[in-house]
Amino acid sequence: MTGRFISFEGGEGAGKTTQIKRLAERLRGEGQDVVLTREPGGTPGAEAIRELLVTGETGRWNGRTEALLMNAARADHVARLILPALGEGKWVLCDRFGHSTLAYQGVARGMDLEELLALHNIATEGLWPAKTLLFDLPVRAGLARAGVRGGTEARFEGEALAFHEKVRAGFLALAKQDKCMTVIDAERDADAVAAHVWRVIEPMLRPLP
Amino acid sequence: MTGRFISFEGGEGAGKTTQIKRLAERLRGEGQDVVLTREPGGTPGAEAIRELLVTGETGRWNGRTEALLMNAARADHVARLILPALGEGKWVLCDRFGHSTLAYQGVARGMDLEELLALHNIATEGLWPAKTLLFDLPVRAGLARAGVRGGTEARFEGEALAFHEKVRAGFLALAKQDKCMTVIDAERDADAVAAHVWRVIEPMLRPLP
Ligand SMILES: Nc1ncnc2c1ncn2[C@@H]1O[C@H](COP(=O)(O)OP(=O)(O)O)[C@@H](O)[C@H]1O
Ligand SMILES: Nc1ncnc2c1ncn2[C@@H]1O[C@H](COP(=O)(O)OP(=O)(O)O)[C@@H](O)[C@H]1O
Ligand SMILES: [Mg+2]
Ligand SMILES: [Mg+2]
Repeated sequence: MTGRFISFEGGEGAGKTTQIKRLAERLRGEGQDVVLTREPGGTPGAEAIRELLVTGETGRWNGRTEALLMNAARADHVARLILPALGEGKWVLCDRFGHSTLAYQGVARGMDLEELLALHNIATEGLWPAKTLLFDLPVRAGLARAGVRGGTEARFEGEALAFHEKVRAGFLALAKQDKCMTVIDAERDADAVAAHVWRVIEPMLRPLP
Repeated sequence: MTGRFISFEGGEGAGKTTQIKRLAERLRGEGQDVVLTREPGGTPGAEAIRELLVTGETGRWNGRTEALLMNAARADHVARLILPALGEGKWVLCDRFGHSTLAYQGVARGMDLEELLALHNIATEGLWPAKTLLFDLPVRAGLARAGVRGGTEARFEGEALAFHEKVRAGFLALAKQDKCMTVIDAERDADAVAAHVWRVIEPMLRPLP
């Protein structure tokens, strides 16, 4: 039997981490073997690369180098955790995966989407999730939840807001083209969101053909 | 004016580091501005990535992750040192560059050459040296110079030898297809090798059209 690979995508404060934990519990309640992981990171090698990505000055890496480092971490994560777990028939729930790279480095920071797709396919040998849940809500609502002020007075905050708007639009554009993505209205309360997630995921409990 | 980008390639102990220093001196003697650099590394970011590549256990990274990390370092090196120096009309002499990735990760470790080329072109936006000098000599001679025993008795050493033979054959195969590569017989004494290098490089002193 082959496991199921599901990614959780969306902007800051959309509820990905909240919902991934709830889905993991629910699936475990159904007797399923669940691996909960995140990107960038998930394996010792990928976490070491994550250190490089998240420390130092803002301008430490340009977009191109950042995308390559992200994909190096992903290559390790996929080869050493995700594929082995899927091979053992487990569910793999991943907090962010390739669509985040496309939305952040691609749409929001302007790197060519075709290059990013080529990179992803080299890093993962073409692995994409069977299902991607996109948690969508207005940028200000997400930033407020995540504890970030969304005011437009200061120039930087205005820029930050425009950046997050690009990310949101990028995710929604990807969802239009990708049949494996489901958009979840993440503005509702956590119970309503979890119920929607379960309606999407429950059918995947059926044995694979 | 645009500078000249020259890479030095070949196996262990071929004399790359010896010859790159001699060429740099000679070019400086001609009044040229020379940047001497190496891969992986050459910039603070790339050196930090190099740390990840060269420390830890042998099996720390698989070939795919290693190639991505190498190209992440290269992206930083190209964007922040090589291209700016070339833009200022300098000569950039680089100890190993893309052909090493093709010979080591590709031919010797079996990663697909097309994938490695695609990766290189994403990392560098298609930058290849104007001239690549391939220092070629028998594997045992190079390993002996580098202070490594080349015996075939122990299984590991036998494997190591076969590995270096693949690298050598890989470099020579690349040179057959790449008009910008010149094979230099590196078995001769250092003066004879330096004289050959100079015969190849001196014509590049002429102003570019
Ligand atoms: N549906 C929801 N309604 C209101 N607040 C929520 C909801 N889901 C999560 N939160 C809260 O919003 C914040 C961000 O949630 P989190 O799951 O960490 O989002 P993400 O991982 O997408 O950044 C947390 O404080 C969390 O408790
Ligand atoms: N042409 C040569 N003949 C003999 N020994 C050499 C020659 N060129 C370099 N060496 C010596 O061989 C060793 C390896 O040379 P090096 O330039 O470091 O090679 P590489 O950088 O290709 O590994 C050094 O000890 C160097 O002094
Ligand atoms: Mg989170
Ligand atoms: Mg050397």
